[in-house]
Amino acid sequence: MILKGNAIVGQSGGPTSAINATLSGVIRGCHKSEEISKLYGMENGIEGFLNEDIIDLSYLFGDEDKLALLELTPSSALGSCRRKLPPLENKNEIYDKIFTLFKKYDIRYFFYIGGNDSMDTVLKLSKYANSIDYDIRIMGVPKTIDNDLVLTDHTPGFGSAAKFIATTIKEIACDCSVYKIKAVTIVEMMGRDAGWLTAAAALPKYYDGLGADLIYLPEFFFEDDKFISSVNEQLKTHPNVVVAVSEGIRYENGTYVGEGKQSGATDAFGHKYLAGTAKYLEMLVREKIGCKVRSVELNLPQRCSAHIASATDIDESVAIGKSAVEFALDGKSGKMPIFVRQSGEYSVKIECADVNEIANKVKFVPKGFINEEGNNVTKECIEYITPLIIGEKTKKYENGMPVHLCLK
Amino acid sequence: MILKGNAIVGQSGGPTSAINATLSGVIRGCHKSEEISKLYGMENGIEGFLNEDIIDLSYLFGDEDKLALLELTPSSALGSCRRKLPPLENKNEIYDKIFTLFKKYDIRYFFYIGGNDSMDTVLKLSKYANSIDYDIRIMGVPKTIDNDLVLTDHTPGFGSAAKFIATTIKEIACDCSVYKIKAVTIVEMMGRDAGWLTAAAALPKYYDGLGADLIYLPEFFFEDDKFISSVNEQLKTHPNVVVAVSEGIRYENGTYVGEGKQSGATDAFGHKYLAGTAKYLEMLVREKIGCKVRSVELNLPQRCSAHIASATDIDESVAIGKSAVEFALDGKSGKMPIFVRQSGEYSVKIECADVNEIANKVKFVPKGFINEEGNNVTKECIEYITPLIIGEKTKKYENGMPVHLCLK
Repeated sequence: MILKGNAIVGQSGGPTSAINATLSGVIRGCHKSEEISKLYGMENGIEGFLNEDIIDLSYLFGDEDKLALLELTPSSALGSCRRKLPPLENKNEIYDKIFTLFKKYDIRYFFYIGGNDSMDTVLKLSKYANSIDYDIRIMGVPKTIDNDLVLTDHTPGFGSAAKFIATTIKEIACDCSVYKIKAVTIVEMMGRDAGWLTAAAALPKYYDGLGADLIYLPEFFFEDDKFISSVNEQLKTHPNVVVAVSEGIRYENGTYVGEGKQSGATDAFGHKYLAGTAKYLEMLVREKIGCKVRSVELNLPQRCSAHIASATDIDESVAIGKSAVEFALDGKSGKMPIFVRQSGEYSVKIECADVNEIANKVKFVPKGFINEEGNNVTKECIEYITPLIIGEKTKKYENGMPVHLCLK
Repeated sequence: MILKGNAIVGQSGGPTSAINATLSGVIRGCHKSEEISKLYGMENGIEGFLNEDIIDLSYLFGDEDKLALLELTPSSALGSCRRKLPPLENKNEIYDKIFTLFKKYDIRYFFYIGGNDSMDTVLKLSKYANSIDYDIRIMGVPKTIDNDLVLTDHTPGFGSAAKFIATTIKEIACDCSVYKIKAVTIVEMMGRDAGWLTAAAALPKYYDGLGADLIYLPEFFFEDDKFISSVNEQLKTHPNVVVAVSEGIRYENGTYVGEGKQSGATDAFGHKYLAGTAKYLEMLVREKIGCKVRSVELNLPQRCSAHIASATDIDESVAIGKSAVEFALDGKSGKMPIFVRQSGEYSVKIECADVNEIANKVKFVPKGFINEEGNNVTKECIEYITPLIIGEKTKKYENGMPVHLCLK
């Protein structure tokens, strides 16, 4: 069971506000272990590793100040990539190369922090290791603001993004409430397939009465007419209506709202131009209702606003990184640690799941979390999200800005 | 000199993260005075006042908990309006009505928190009061994220917006740095005439080496070709280029970049469509350089992200509200308190200026604050902005979101 050697960690896919907290957890876990001598970091994920772009992270072992900074640094401190490994069936030199490098650096522990595609990498590498009988423990560690990995109760990174969204929607709703003339504000959240992030926009109104009045997720087919009549309905009771939409909402025929109806639109250079989902709905409201209307895309700050990270999310992200190391030391491979929500007051247990059952699957917002009209979420959904955004971390500021740790 | 009676306060123009801190300052100032019995608040500025939409704010006198919450509540808690009063020369029933209401409620102190247009209201009302010999002290209190009021060193509200921008640009630059492929990210800030907010985007790179590489303000004529060559120049030295632009950048012929070159663009309904400044530049980079490019509009969160308010800004905003009351008690009218920056370590003195010299004027970013190429700001500019974004307030959170005070 005991396997001595070095470890390597990488980050892959879109960055989040908590992915470096998980990296810190892996560093803390490796530091504690007697089996692991050195921890390497791959720059830009598996792609950088193939070029031997690696750095020795062992200098961070036990450096509490630097690790605390790392945990509140947004984005992937090691860099990232979007490279998907080829199918195993193809005799491919890439796998040979990776394992040659594993041997060269005596790598016996491999940690890959990422989402769906990254779990695919973990799955393939662990299968390949088995096939060539190389003794290595390959672990995936979840992260994604999209919260769309199956089996785990939620994903590290989601809570911080959800906290940013709930807070920002609350502030935008304050901002929009100052005039008495009728106005519609449409806010677009990330989420191509799953509506988890947009669902977080429901929290301010639920708890404080002021927030997003209508919520549209990709899980429920969108209809222009029903949307306009819901907005009109809202405008009857109060002049400032706030609408939250996922970028991925689509019509029953499968086309995205952000592209389906815009075939006539051209940009300044005569190219076909996609305005974005909220922008399209802004045009629709202007055309059909005619009141003041504007659209806001929350865009990149959703996944990098570490200054408003959720303490629950950051702490859990560190914990799951540590657990990944512990599971690996315990002999697990081809696995990913997951959160299992306990009953009663909010807490999670971290268990180990088969990456095979996670890779390339998507967890959608379930039917019971969306109301019948498809224009809001239910109390169950709010209660699911709320504990994930609780708590604030004390950050270090210099020159008025949060301090980050640069690894590269 | 002693004038006894009631006071009224209103908020006008676009909301900010600090305008309620100034309201709190006015409340604190009135509470302390012996001359002022009651403090009324006008809902939706002068427009609401004309409908007698007023509330008694005296219940907040001495309520430290509520005032502390109010100081960190974004947007105008009393509501706002954009109503400009007609010229005084026109015999107008509006002035009669306003002063009839002043008499009805025995209002002897009038505080109007706002920007340029609001100072115009203050100017007209104080002239009218003189003309009819009604004893009242009419004071403007500055606020605007745009920082474009003359005479004052800076405006309340600017520091918090600048802190949000500097922080967000720092986080976006982290986010954009994870891949090695060439990519340009164009971030658009508010600022139709003056580039102060966009200038704040320069801070992260100046202090930490990672941030906006190029900065474009409305004060310097924009040229597409020069812009493309500057971006290309940047791409030679690092793959991820971040550009900050004001919404109001324009060409030498006066047309805005956001509209000048888009005459061919049409929306989904066949209407002429303005994509926004950053969106246009995104298209331009795609057309002329062809690398990965995206645009981000910071939009409303710039003026309502109270969760990352600058402590300096909030404290100064409270102080200037208090000072407005003190100046009025001292007999001043038709005035506005201003910040005068002291030499040496950063501090301000609050003095009193003539609203006549402030109304309807714009303070632009001076030439010495912009570099020769017109694609960045100077050290002097950075040193001017930095102290304004220093410090963080401890906020109260409930259910993971900041708590706000609702007045209406």
